[in-house]
Amino acid sequence: MGAALELWFDFASTYSYLAAERVEHAAAAAGVTLIWRPFLLGPLFKAQQGLDDSPFNRHPVRAAYMWRDVARECARLSIPWTRPSSFPRNSVLAARVAQVALDEPWGPAFVRRVFRANFAEDRDIAARDTIVELLAAAGADPDAALARAVAPEHKDRLRRATEEATRRGVFGAPSFFVGDELFFGNERLDLALARAAGGMMRA
Amino acid sequence: MGAALELWFDFASTYSYLAAERVEHAAAAAGVTLIWRPFLLGPLFKAQQGLDDSPFNRHPVRAAYMWRDVARECARLSIPWTRPSSFPRNSVLAARVAQVALDEPWGPAFVRRVFRANFAEDRDIAARDTIVELLAAAGADPDAALARAVAPEHKDRLRRATEEATRRGVFGAPSFFVGDELFFGNERLDLALARAAGGMMRA
Repeated sequence: MGAALELWFDFASTYSYLAAERVEHAAAAAGVTLIWRPFLLGPLFKAQQGLDDSPFNRHPVRAAYMWRDVARECARLSIPWTRPSSFPRNSVLAARVAQVALDEPWGPAFVRRVFRANFAEDRDIAARDTIVELLAAAGADPDAALARAVAPEHKDRLRRATEEATRRGVFGAPSFFVGDELFFGNERLDLALARAAGGMMRA
Repeated sequence: MGAALELWFDFASTYSYLAAERVEHAAAAAGVTLIWRPFLLGPLFKAQQGLDDSPFNRHPVRAAYMWRDVARECARLSIPWTRPSSFPRNSVLAARVAQVALDEPWGPAFVRRVFRANFAEDRDIAARDTIVELLAAAGADPDAALARAVAPEHKDRLRRATEEATRRGVFGAPSFFVGDELFFGNERLDLALARAAGGMMRA
């Protein structure tokens, strides 16, 4: 019996999108239980690096590569891709709703739809109307889910999740945990899964 | 007939070490010609980010992960590893000598020995005595190689290499080029090789 895989993600993160597109199939194939952990990169970047923006927006050379690399990876993996016209998008509302969603069977479907809205359809995931539509498409009652998501209890829950990420050594997304073992970046998904399944994969 | 693979590396870079340990065997297996391109990260970090030190030394949380990740990768890939007692080590002399070395058949052997000295044996690769010993072990005439390496022509050559890296969009190491296509990070070695061999590998 293997350990679970935690995927810590932010809906604004390009490489989180790549991980989210692959993780369900990969975890199922490895026989590993997947735990989705939404959190916010913004407060983490602020606390660790004093940044008020994505690190990519402070480093244009690295950003130019990131956009090329993500488009290339999407093409390679047959993942739909449209470069968002705004980056990073505000992911606070979507993350709050995702926490509520992930208590329900339709949670993963909602997560997938939010990522696709941002990175395949160039839609504003910060807009309430967008979230309502994505909730309905995932099979939820949008008004009920939104009412729960913006209640103080779920605002606190997202803040605590971000604090937990910080405490456990997260510095970016996607990040994977298998127990206390941290794997950073979409490129580490297969290694994290191998660890969770009970061994370390050899190259 | 495939394209060549350029590996841009700095002897101070942990992930360059991982790439250097794997690249010769992997390139040969893919039928791809390998071109070693030493350069200096220091001037690049200074120009792009205003840094006078490794970015890892400015971001302790990320650095803690990097040390764990590199040790884990070395264990997985059976690469010898000792965390250097000084980081980043000054790699200027070693890079100058490497340029001279890579004009000769014993160049790759010298490069491998410098990386192992830094990351497997915790030796000071900035020390002339260390370089002399590594040159001799690689089959070179140390005095002749050192005399050439510190000549103005080779100082200029290293400066120009670093300028070329900057001009082509490099922001860290290891970086791979296949023609104009940039792949950043040890994790992209296999994709870069697949591109060089004439196709894009599918996951």
